[in-house]
Amino acid sequence: MNALKPDNRIESEGGFIETWNPNSKPFQCAGVALSRCTLQRNGLRRPFFTNAPQQIFIQQGSGIFGIIFSGCPQTFEEPTQRGQSQKPQDRHQKVYHFREGDLIAVPTGAAFWMFNNQDTPVVAVSLIHTNSLQNQLDQMPRRFYLAGNQEQEFVQYQQSQSQKGKQHQEQEEDNEGGNIFSGFTPEFLEQALNVDRKIVKNLQGVNEDEEKGAIVKVEGGLSVTAPPTRKQQQRAEEEEEDDDDEEEEKPQKSKSKSRNGIDETICTMRLRHNIGQTSSPDFFNPQAGSITTATGLDFPALLLLKLSAQFGSLRKNAMFVPHYNLNANSIVYALEGRAMMQVVNCTGDRVFDGELQEGQVLIVPQNFAVAAKSQSNNFKYVAFKTHDIPVTGTLAGRNSLLNALPEEVIQHTFNLRSEQARQIKNNNPFNFLVPPPRHSQMRYVA
Amino acid sequence: MNALKPDNRIESEGGFIETWNPNSKPFQCAGVALSRCTLQRNGLRRPFFTNAPQQIFIQQGSGIFGIIFSGCPQTFEEPTQRGQSQKPQDRHQKVYHFREGDLIAVPTGAAFWMFNNQDTPVVAVSLIHTNSLQNQLDQMPRRFYLAGNQEQEFVQYQQSQSQKGKQHQEQEEDNEGGNIFSGFTPEFLEQALNVDRKIVKNLQGVNEDEEKGAIVKVEGGLSVTAPPTRKQQQRAEEEEEDDDDEEEEKPQKSKSKSRNGIDETICTMRLRHNIGQTSSPDFFNPQAGSITTATGLDFPALLLLKLSAQFGSLRKNAMFVPHYNLNANSIVYALEGRAMMQVVNCTGDRVFDGELQEGQVLIVPQNFAVAAKSQSNNFKYVAFKTHDIPVTGTLAGRNSLLNALPEEVIQHTFNLRSEQARQIKNNNPFNFLVPPPRHSQMRYVA
Amino acid sequence: MNALKPDNRIESEGGFIETWNPNSKPFQCAGVALSRCTLQRNGLRRPFFTNAPQQIFIQQGSGIFGIIFSGCPQTFEEPTQRGQSQKPQDRHQKVYHFREGDLIAVPTGAAFWMFNNQDTPVVAVSLIHTNSLQNQLDQMPRRFYLAGNQEQEFVQYQQSQSQKGKQHQEQEEDNEGGNIFSGFTPEFLEQALNVDRKIVKNLQGVNEDEEKGAIVKVEGGLSVTAPPTRKQQQRAEEEEEDDDDEEEEKPQKSKSKSRNGIDETICTMRLRHNIGQTSSPDFFNPQAGSITTATGLDFPALLLLKLSAQFGSLRKNAMFVPHYNLNANSIVYALEGRAMMQVVNCTGDRVFDGELQEGQVLIVPQNFAVAAKSQSNNFKYVAFKTHDIPVTGTLAGRNSLLNALPEEVIQHTFNLRSEQARQIKNNNPFNFLVPPPRHSQMRYVA
Repeated sequence: MNALKPDNRIESEGGFIETWNPNSKPFQCAGVALSRCTLQRNGLRRPFFTNAPQQIFIQQGSGIFGIIFSGCPQTFEEPTQRGQSQKPQDRHQKVYHFREGDLIAVPTGAAFWMFNNQDTPVVAVSLIHTNSLQNQLDQMPRRFYLAGNQEQEFVQYQQSQSQKGKQHQEQEEDNEGGNIFSGFTPEFLEQALNVDRKIVKNLQGVNEDEEKGAIVKVEGGLSVTAPPTRKQQQRAEEEEEDDDDEEEEKPQKSKSKSRNGIDETICTMRLRHNIGQTSSPDFFNPQAGSITTATGLDFPALLLLKLSAQFGSLRKNAMFVPHYNLNANSIVYALEGRAMMQVVNCTGDRVFDGELQEGQVLIVPQNFAVAAKSQSNNFKYVAFKTHDIPVTGTLAGRNSLLNALPEEVIQHTFNLRSEQARQIKNNNPFNFLVPPPRHSQMRYVA
Repeated sequence: MNALKPDNRIESEGGFIETWNPNSKPFQCAGVALSRCTLQRNGLRRPFFTNAPQQIFIQQGSGIFGIIFSGCPQTFEEPTQRGQSQKPQDRHQKVYHFREGDLIAVPTGAAFWMFNNQDTPVVAVSLIHTNSLQNQLDQMPRRFYLAGNQEQEFVQYQQSQSQKGKQHQEQEEDNEGGNIFSGFTPEFLEQALNVDRKIVKNLQGVNEDEEKGAIVKVEGGLSVTAPPTRKQQQRAEEEEEDDDDEEEEKPQKSKSKSRNGIDETICTMRLRHNIGQTSSPDFFNPQAGSITTATGLDFPALLLLKLSAQFGSLRKNAMFVPHYNLNANSIVYALEGRAMMQVVNCTGDRVFDGELQEGQVLIVPQNFAVAAKSQSNNFKYVAFKTHDIPVTGTLAGRNSLLNALPEEVIQHTFNLRSEQARQIKNNNPFNFLVPPPRHSQMRYVA
Repeated sequence: MNALKPDNRIESEGGFIETWNPNSKPFQCAGVALSRCTLQRNGLRRPFFTNAPQQIFIQQGSGIFGIIFSGCPQTFEEPTQRGQSQKPQDRHQKVYHFREGDLIAVPTGAAFWMFNNQDTPVVAVSLIHTNSLQNQLDQMPRRFYLAGNQEQEFVQYQQSQSQKGKQHQEQEEDNEGGNIFSGFTPEFLEQALNVDRKIVKNLQGVNEDEEKGAIVKVEGGLSVTAPPTRKQQQRAEEEEEDDDDEEEEKPQKSKSKSRNGIDETICTMRLRHNIGQTSSPDFFNPQAGSITTATGLDFPALLLLKLSAQFGSLRKNAMFVPHYNLNANSIVYALEGRAMMQVVNCTGDRVFDGELQEGQVLIVPQNFAVAAKSQSNNFKYVAFKTHDIPVTGTLAGRNSLLNALPEEVIQHTFNLRSEQARQIKNNNPFNFLVPPPRHSQMRYVA
């Protein structure tokens, strides 16, 4: 096992996309694919959909995004904005603001686009759970772009894969760029869209430069209808209020239980949730750090995706204790700083022992034990988990497995004296995060 | 990808069964198996069960069928009919009438039989979802016949499969005919059934001609207890009334929620639903055609099967617009006429571009885009989908993805002028079915 | 197919563990792994967790066990017992008593330990459903021990597996013993547990003899806090009362539906259920025997595990009739005596025809037909099933498939006379268990 950096980068007009090889062993075992997208100012990631559920974590920056559910009502109605021209009103589906620390839930097959309307580049880390039951295709992550003629970012890996064995696959999905419209004949699209050949050619990206890529640059910015953010009105101080606001936008809809389960729940489902900048974390210890989780219980869209995430921040020399995920693989991505990490398998071997640095990822398989000790003043990470209600078992500290065993069982299991068993059960009074060791503490032990 | 005809046919006394090779790549990827059964007048398909959930669509004809849940009560009580003899009363489980356009839901492992009591041959297309989680065996479709000594229709493919690699498999499941009783020793069956050796031999199909096959001919017809159909009383005009009737047969049972979940729900669950002859389709456009779907929301048995189906009818030169299935593979079978179809993958390649003709099948993988244009006056198809609540995303027309995107996003995504973006969003006013192009329409566009 | 005995045995200080090769074809097809653990008096099976859900059946003996959910409250509070010393009070999670015939449900990843506090050796048969969706690792069963430096019991098979192909796997998980603590560096554990190096070495099993193994001997026995069993107070006569008692222990908790779904339901969930010594079986026939099932409807923890079990007892020459499991594989383990068994596949071939003897296991795949005839005065078995609500279809007797078919369908399906069809439907008046044949019965048939 290794801490992995992205191994490929595709440049676009308005930014770039980096990918980790989804065919490498740890990614294949975990059944996930990872990529990182960087949007420059005014960069628009063109709409695409994916064959599996996806979580996107905003590592840096802010902007707007949309997730399109075909058939849902267009609830954002746009009056003319530029110059009060005669241009007819635009209507479209909900547009969301996002900011650093947001987790965005993108359901399987739903079209997604995003735009950076600030100066700071947006960095978004995206996890695709290709091994999800919602993906009925093979394990390859597939992006279906609605526009452009660039190569989609994961195709290269599919080809290196098929060259090993099934060469007929290559013929089907070649390396040349294209989008989901470019495969249809222009006649079909003319009739389907009722537009002329010139527009169809733009849809198909026929004359477009491939270098333009998945992220285009919008000179002058987008002026899409969206309510002003708090920031635009006044600086938001309280995170909770921001989150509450979101839910207040549609109080009458979320209360009434709908029979068809489509219009009322899917169409107005909340699809972003901040975990990286919240002032109310789930675990907090001022000397050690804090942890915030987003599971299906906090963020119901995750019940649909069957995924969840955890944001953690560790102070220098603080640890999170040895623990394991009972029901999920965990994909740990370092956002800032570095930590010493150790991962242990079922035979007691240390399969990883090294540093996880900013921008690297480490995959911790289900039930494998993991512990970390921060080497920086502020080690921050996001851990994506492949279960919507992940359960963790800690191996040390309050409420750990050892703490819950009868003292006599510990004593005889580990061949200790009764008083030593008591130390194991009770010496660490902390739940999950352990502060740096101090002399006063050490004295008590010895 | 190709439009596929059945590649094998097994004759029986009372009809024949055609199969598509389930090991061919498109069927393996979709995790399904397809067969088509034709019953001549008085043909009885002998009872069998299958290792995966199954949807049967009645392409032609009418008759009766039964689905046996072992342990459920025998709710049809049969008084003596022929000649008022002393013969004791017969009791058995529910017998259903079926007719053209019906979709029949056969749960995993439930025994199914059907009988053609009319002159028109019955043609029934059956989809088995071998990749269902309900099938804990391997991906081979397996029919377990209760009678006869014919070869089951999918065994031949299993052998060609095992010859490639695992030859020991061949020894276990050979090509000679047999039914589920023929494998037991006669002594076991004598004790289990408390009948004599002669009857046991008939159960085991010992002396039976293999040519008799899976479909036997019943001279003089069956006289099974079943309520008269509407047709037999008076010609049914209104489809809805017919469907309502079905549910009125057991109003007191379906209302009371049962604790055990077996007797009250499974035993009286409605197992047929007409989609091919309804007068209230889900999509309707007199110039273009109509579409009717049966999902878990219309036909609750499909929630159990995790499958659904769509019946469509397209007028000449009408299209269904480019669209994709978010969460299902789609197995499109042409019932009548022919259509030009195009299928596009994630790299923008047209992986199918050709005609789908009556009796052929085309498999459209999840998330791949597909569009069709009818070449006949009335192109009819049934699409089986591998999800009980399938969701479709359209790429053109009202309520499509393009229609739901903000105009400015379209403009910059496709490098269009603002007024062209508006055309893409709004020019096609139709939802899913597009009528043949007319001059008046074309004028507006240009 | 064969009746299989365990093929390996690992001795420990306090007992031994026998395993069946999980890579053998029948186990791989069923997606399960089986082992049998024997605990001598005062044998303590040290805590471990497993990467898949697990059912344990107590074939013999009695004792105590614990299942630890990390984070759940410690509801057993232990006053000082030995000598009223100044030792502080111990608190720990629930400790259960078990006895012969108990089925214990161990959720994926939950830590389990057990102890034999009687003279009779405890024999526990454990089924791991590695093919469960809850296991996101590969199909290998993996025990994660919290203590010791013994080899875990299934590792040997993993290695023989990897030697065939993927040799790099070997490097990761070697054959040397170790526990989940031994992989961490002592420094990590010192900080995490706040204990000294000497205690850490015991946790890691550094100086421990590998021969000690997974089961240690506790001289003088354990004095763990647990309420006295009925047996200890007075001999339990009525099984039902015993079971009721268990549920009465926590009436206020199980009534209130909790929002978080963790504390109120998981933490107090009942995890044992007796099926082997109950006086109220589900099927009973004094001449034939009895059958008791534990499904998700009797024993709600099984809804979580997606597993179930059946205990059966057959008198000499009695049968259970040919039947099949609609939705599960069945792993039949003989507890006592022997029976002739026959298993039939979809082509009508008898894939097993032989004796199943005490201590052997036979795997019956989903939908395959199986029948048995006892050769002993009391053939007892437990059948583990890979579905939480398994459904069985019987092929003979009252409420069987044949019984539920219309008489005319049977007649023409099997080419019988009407009166013979009636015999098939009605001659066997028993539901599932058929008593030994008697002369009086045979007379009626002939």
